[in-house]
Amino acid sequence: MDVFNSINDVKAKISSKKLSGQTVGFVPTMGFLHEGHLKLIDQAKEENDVVVLSIFVNPLQFGENEDLDAYPRDEERDLTLAEQHGVDLVFFPTTETMYPQPLSLNISVVRRGDVLCGKSRPGHFEGVVTILTKLFNICQPDRAYFGRKDAQQVAVVDALIEDFNFPIELVAVDTVREADGLAKSSRNVNLSDKEREEAPSIQEALQYGKELIERGKDLPAAVLQKTRQFLENKTRGKIDYIELLSYPELEPLEKIDRQVILAIAVFYERARLIDNVILNEASLDKGN
Amino acid sequence: MDVFNSINDVKAKISSKKLSGQTVGFVPTMGFLHEGHLKLIDQAKEENDVVVLSIFVNPLQFGENEDLDAYPRDEERDLTLAEQHGVDLVFFPTTETMYPQPLSLNISVVRRGDVLCGKSRPGHFEGVVTILTKLFNICQPDRAYFGRKDAQQVAVVDALIEDFNFPIELVAVDTVREADGLAKSSRNVNLSDKEREEAPSIQEALQYGKELIERGKDLPAAVLQKTRQFLENKTRGKIDYIELLSYPELEPLEKIDRQVILAIAVFYERARLIDNVILNEASLDKGN
Repeated sequence: MDVFNSINDVKAKISSKKLSGQTVGFVPTMGFLHEGHLKLIDQAKEENDVVVLSIFVNPLQFGENEDLDAYPRDEERDLTLAEQHGVDLVFFPTTETMYPQPLSLNISVVRRGDVLCGKSRPGHFEGVVTILTKLFNICQPDRAYFGRKDAQQVAVVDALIEDFNFPIELVAVDTVREADGLAKSSRNVNLSDKEREEAPSIQEALQYGKELIERGKDLPAAVLQKTRQFLENKTRGKIDYIELLSYPELEPLEKIDRQVILAIAVFYERARLIDNVILNEASLDKGN
Repeated sequence: MDVFNSINDVKAKISSKKLSGQTVGFVPTMGFLHEGHLKLIDQAKEENDVVVLSIFVNPLQFGENEDLDAYPRDEERDLTLAEQHGVDLVFFPTTETMYPQPLSLNISVVRRGDVLCGKSRPGHFEGVVTILTKLFNICQPDRAYFGRKDAQQVAVVDALIEDFNFPIELVAVDTVREADGLAKSSRNVNLSDKEREEAPSIQEALQYGKELIERGKDLPAAVLQKTRQFLENKTRGKIDYIELLSYPELEPLEKIDRQVILAIAVFYERARLIDNVILNEASLDKGN
């Protein structure tokens, strides 16, 4: 496994691989790898000749009052795990390498960006699409892998690839969970014991809401209200949002008649957790 | 020479060329090719295995009151010229192909964009960088060719490639001129006979200003004032701007102590013409 800090070095290495006809699967991460990331890597390994992992905690996607400094890091463990899972190239740049000078261009997200996490985290998806535009051009992947836990990120990356015609296939991979249903996240280590006990209620609330939707008797507002009540009874975390939207367009719904996402974000003391469930049209009660 | 209208077809063809180790030179144009474009094509031909020409009049870079409808077109002649000059692939999409739905992302130009043509044409460079981001991803060039006549465009494309890490070398090619000094432009056909007689005064004014700068006795404001007077005496066209800025940063100058651009834009009845001269540090009188 090769580890590169320099843009030119990793570009040159990947270019030579591509020239020899090898396909490149790319897993962009902020490090502190957990099983969710490893699942992305494993799937990339199955589907491509070369797997490129990037590790970069991107300051541009953190707000001023967010957890950039608290974001957990463990480089050595990350590299060990990457090697064990067959990663071929790791791109591990510094902030100065990725942002050597103030940017002259600015990408804004005018659709799919102003709901869910985008509403709670202004500028977050601008930071995400900017770093991904850079990383896509550096790593030139054939396929890029993202977890469905960050469903809005998947929707925004889908728009990025479509709008800008990147020659890249977006691969969305199912969320990996703890035994009790909590979605794996690098931020879970920042939960207190008590919070960790309560956090699976996010997934329970999503399953509860999913059943309401599948039963087909409630309009969106009622689904949201009941799901909120369910969750408030189970955790003292502060609910940031519970939303039900079309997917991947992320537009509000008067009734539930197409693919939808039910998504939740909860603030705990030192971590904000997110999770979601996507219901495709086939699973909806057509009598709704 | 192959002509493609479909994004997928041209992408596939170029990918197969690149996979076989061939380098790609890309000349993006809005068609109505003149000798300036042909010089770009010729240089691309010399420096690459494959030359890709795109012809697309990009509505996104025209303002509401600009000359989108008046922009001259001659597809048949363009294809004949392209073939004569050894273009391998022409990408000739429709507006619907390039913009099948409203964009979810928006690129703004926060540096290098708010002076010169960017000031006179709000939204113009946003349209330019958006279409180029798309075309770069579709055509995957090793080198992209631009004329120095559009010096601000060269500066903005330089920022686009740097900011977003496109694996592309920007090649800026000298302006081609008529015998009397007028810069070749697709818009020159929209000049009246009288305007056509006066239009070389733009280049004369730039040469006059260049001599003032090289002489090194005038501060920027005086160079601009004298050049404006020179030009006003020679043409009845309405001066849109005369500016003297650092290059490629395009920042205002208190004194002329680094590479600079002197740039002019003039409105005629049915055409707005631009031209410029760039003076590098070596040509400046160090006693200034």
